[in-house]
Amino acid sequence: MGFHMANNLIRKSGAPLVIHDTNSEIVNKFTALNSDRKIEVVGSPLEVAERSSVIISMLPASPHVKEVYLGEKGVLKALKKGSLVMDSSTIDAAVSQLIAEKVREAGSIALDPPGSGGVPGAEAGTLTFMCGAQDEAEFERAKKHLVNMGKNIVYCGSNGNGQVAKICNNMLLGISMMGVSEAMNLGVKLGMDPNLLASILNTSTGRCWSSEVYNPCPGVVPTAPASKGYAGGFGISLMAKDMGLAVTAANESKTPVLLGGLAHQLYNQIMKTTGYERKDFSITYKWLNEKN
Amino acid sequence: MGFHMANNLIRKSGAPLVIHDTNSEIVNKFTALNSDRKIEVVGSPLEVAERSSVIISMLPASPHVKEVYLGEKGVLKALKKGSLVMDSSTIDAAVSQLIAEKVREAGSIALDPPGSGGVPGAEAGTLTFMCGAQDEAEFERAKKHLVNMGKNIVYCGSNGNGQVAKICNNMLLGISMMGVSEAMNLGVKLGMDPNLLASILNTSTGRCWSSEVYNPCPGVVPTAPASKGYAGGFGISLMAKDMGLAVTAANESKTPVLLGGLAHQLYNQIMKTTGYERKDFSITYKWLNEKN
Amino acid sequence: MGFHMANNLIRKSGAPLVIHDTNSEIVNKFTALNSDRKIEVVGSPLEVAERSSVIISMLPASPHVKEVYLGEKGVLKALKKGSLVMDSSTIDAAVSQLIAEKVREAGSIALDPPGSGGVPGAEAGTLTFMCGAQDEAEFERAKKHLVNMGKNIVYCGSNGNGQVAKICNNMLLGISMMGVSEAMNLGVKLGMDPNLLASILNTSTGRCWSSEVYNPCPGVVPTAPASKGYAGGFGISLMAKDMGLAVTAANESKTPVLLGGLAHQLYNQIMKTTGYERKDFSITYKWLNEKN
Amino acid sequence: MGFHMANNLIRKSGAPLVIHDTNSEIVNKFTALNSDRKIEVVGSPLEVAERSSVIISMLPASPHVKEVYLGEKGVLKALKKGSLVMDSSTIDAAVSQLIAEKVREAGSIALDPPGSGGVPGAEAGTLTFMCGAQDEAEFERAKKHLVNMGKNIVYCGSNGNGQVAKICNNMLLGISMMGVSEAMNLGVKLGMDPNLLASILNTSTGRCWSSEVYNPCPGVVPTAPASKGYAGGFGISLMAKDMGLAVTAANESKTPVLLGGLAHQLYNQIMKTTGYERKDFSITYKWLNEKN
Repeated sequence: MGFHMANNLIRKSGAPLVIHDTNSEIVNKFTALNSDRKIEVVGSPLEVAERSSVIISMLPASPHVKEVYLGEKGVLKALKKGSLVMDSSTIDAAVSQLIAEKVREAGSIALDPPGSGGVPGAEAGTLTFMCGAQDEAEFERAKKHLVNMGKNIVYCGSNGNGQVAKICNNMLLGISMMGVSEAMNLGVKLGMDPNLLASILNTSTGRCWSSEVYNPCPGVVPTAPASKGYAGGFGISLMAKDMGLAVTAANESKTPVLLGGLAHQLYNQIMKTTGYERKDFSITYKWLNEKN
Repeated sequence: MGFHMANNLIRKSGAPLVIHDTNSEIVNKFTALNSDRKIEVVGSPLEVAERSSVIISMLPASPHVKEVYLGEKGVLKALKKGSLVMDSSTIDAAVSQLIAEKVREAGSIALDPPGSGGVPGAEAGTLTFMCGAQDEAEFERAKKHLVNMGKNIVYCGSNGNGQVAKICNNMLLGISMMGVSEAMNLGVKLGMDPNLLASILNTSTGRCWSSEVYNPCPGVVPTAPASKGYAGGFGISLMAKDMGLAVTAANESKTPVLLGGLAHQLYNQIMKTTGYERKDFSITYKWLNEKN
Repeated sequence: MGFHMANNLIRKSGAPLVIHDTNSEIVNKFTALNSDRKIEVVGSPLEVAERSSVIISMLPASPHVKEVYLGEKGVLKALKKGSLVMDSSTIDAAVSQLIAEKVREAGSIALDPPGSGGVPGAEAGTLTFMCGAQDEAEFERAKKHLVNMGKNIVYCGSNGNGQVAKICNNMLLGISMMGVSEAMNLGVKLGMDPNLLASILNTSTGRCWSSEVYNPCPGVVPTAPASKGYAGGFGISLMAKDMGLAVTAANESKTPVLLGGLAHQLYNQIMKTTGYERKDFSITYKWLNEKN
Repeated sequence: MGFHMANNLIRKSGAPLVIHDTNSEIVNKFTALNSDRKIEVVGSPLEVAERSSVIISMLPASPHVKEVYLGEKGVLKALKKGSLVMDSSTIDAAVSQLIAEKVREAGSIALDPPGSGGVPGAEAGTLTFMCGAQDEAEFERAKKHLVNMGKNIVYCGSNGNGQVAKICNNMLLGISMMGVSEAMNLGVKLGMDPNLLASILNTSTGRCWSSEVYNPCPGVVPTAPASKGYAGGFGISLMAKDMGLAVTAANESKTPVLLGGLAHQLYNQIMKTTGYERKDFSITYKWLNEKN
């Protein structure tokens, strides 16, 4: 995902890039790209911070973000005053807030703009970035970089709120997709044509993104993963991870998420007991009606 | 609801009406309306069938429908050949199919077009009718009457499918509303402004009718029941009833509805243990965050 | 199940039997048993009623019970005054009450003593009968027959209460078994020895019949179905049926059963999407941790 | 809880005690006890470690345990070689393992024996201790101290397993109690006498500690909190905390806990939206049937 984001950044901004990645395969892809000598590959986040004043990171989970920013060879060991730091990872909001505080103490600006849209969105440059930022002025400073990698750049309030917005959205998405799967499956079992049922839902009060754009029943939306063997799209393991972040945040604040909690458990059940870990998360429909 | 439907029918079609209602208050309202002598009030469904060839019924539940059509003073005791019968009640699809069969044996046409949109939709003439009908020709015959009472008249396939479409839609709606309530409540608890969060959901993958048109958080959508003390709208007891029909149909066909089943139980829990039986079903949001 | 019950009745009471069964294989088994000419096979429930004054029935579901008692060739067409009627089927309590009323109108006594313990209990004569009866005197009259087929004969109050007690017990059992499966599976995944974990649960507050007698983890209780490939025992389809009766009764009385409703959906999900329909219901453990 | 444990320890072992507590009220209670001058109160965990070779701690949550052992004035700053360390807190198993490792590096022995039985059990000296220990020899060394404070001292395997056993047991308990509440409530709503229903469950397959010893329906078990206005016992906030530990451990290991997850959310819902935070966790029964 980071590679595609960087690729768009180079193409659209023309600015030189300093890259660090622990995956040597990705590093090689960057090196291959480097015909005009604008890409420099370095050995640690610290060296990125030494050579840059605008820093963007994209990492799998909270511990990686802590390591990259606060670790021994981390960004904060060398961050220049007045830098702009954007971490696009989807992580615990408290970690985003901690990083923002440390960056601020070092005299720089930090945002949490987690990206939504998956690998295809990263490749096409159509990601949505939900941005937590101290104020709108800082948001605007980041936005002019983020537009090179995404289409919707949304201000979500103070640091950490980018994460909050993303997990709330993705929890709702996870619930909706399971709900659409159940409703479509029930209708089909009771004798309805799936295309007709989908068209009715889409003009009625059950209408949602999961029924209109990404219907989990194969054949209903030709461009949806369900119509392509549930390949590509937003992997069920990523959905399980994001719902886990939402449920953990809810539990820590003792905020009940009754359907959210159940949907999370169901995604874990599917992950654990089927061979679908690498499929799109709309595989929920198939899980409900398959006969192994 | 039936009164508003009849009212629109008179205004738009100009045709004379034969009315039966067991509620004397409603009968009085019809009598008061009857300035041009086009409304005749009769004492039983049987008498309606004697005097009419197009019959529309709107009833609370399956047993009432059985009584009105198959009872001793029921429609089928006097139904004329070639009549058109439309039952707009939301009931068990098997009952709709049974009535349709009996009507067909009597040489007439039957449809199940349950109406969606509640009392406000019935009053405004903007209901959606999801129609089960034997074929599209029969659907078209009914449609020219239904347009006088509704805005969207949708063909759903064979008899019973009007019910199937409606319960699938309403089960999904019940899930979505609970999901939006949880997502909005979690975001607000974690510090987000509700209007900002709603606007983000509505441009992201969590988008649905329940977040856009009918947001359960007070103040977000001024026209939604949530912004008017959860008054009016679609009562939580009706949502509990419709979800019950969906879950029962699912259980009888052994089709799993995991979130649907839980959401149904939660609506029952709210109905049973709060004073909200007469509130709009989006009261789910308040239920999640209130402190009694 | 009925065959084993009848077999015990013959052996222990020595009384002559009049048998009706629609399954010819079972009829043949009865005929083969009939060395001492005490068994008469007849062609309908009506004929059973003509020849007997104590009648016991064991049927799959409510519609069969209605047919056997109220149908054209049903028991009530020929029931002698002063008879004793016991229906051991697990069915809707309202149907039990209806049958009891009709039997009473015919001048006889009716009980609903659904049997618990499955085919093995029926064979061993160790069933528990939970008896709904008009009063304790009528219960005592039935008890002297039921002791020939079961071990615990329990008075549960008025007609229908045998059914209520059974569905409440089996709903709780279905929840407990799923709970024990989750707890054992979690402990094992986190590194505990299953035998040690089971012994701790069984001496702590998590202790229940499902952990002590019928532990779902293979090898923990050698006599439990889990230790014999989940064969025999109480089939998951029967558990799904009984939980369906409980959830339907709960929904009709608007009594929330939040865990009960979810557990029921999960048993349906397992039935529908695995090859385990004929396995013991403790297969829940395997379902949680298997990798297909 | 710690005060009662210490009190029993003094009474039964006669050994001198070095105490540290941040709550001055508790410190005063210790001082008042100190008639025979065997109790010394000190200002930090470090000072306890300086003066003792057997150390027992009882703390609310993981962060407190980290602070007490690894903090600046923590136990490990002064721990003598060959000491025996027992932390009876209910916390994340990974933290127990971390502490055990650090203690071992310091040349001492560590166990995690979380206590079960609540304040009444601590006062009566009847706690159950589920002990994680490196081997049975180390367990035996600890056991001779733990018997002074509890009744059942159980070996659960390696460090961390004391925590695992406890959260598995308490998750199952939380599910069982909710299940018994639903079953009792349903039976009563359908017309059964609660005492009769409880006695049937307790001799049938639904039998569990929650139905027999701690029945949530008032009046069924006179000694249970339900019969005393849900006072005392095991507070719902502690149940919510323990279930949170179980669900978090399950989520982190991607082990599905479907009923466990839902039950946890329901305890959070009750905590958040009623005035029952300080009531016994069997208040679930009241929550299901009350009309506010």
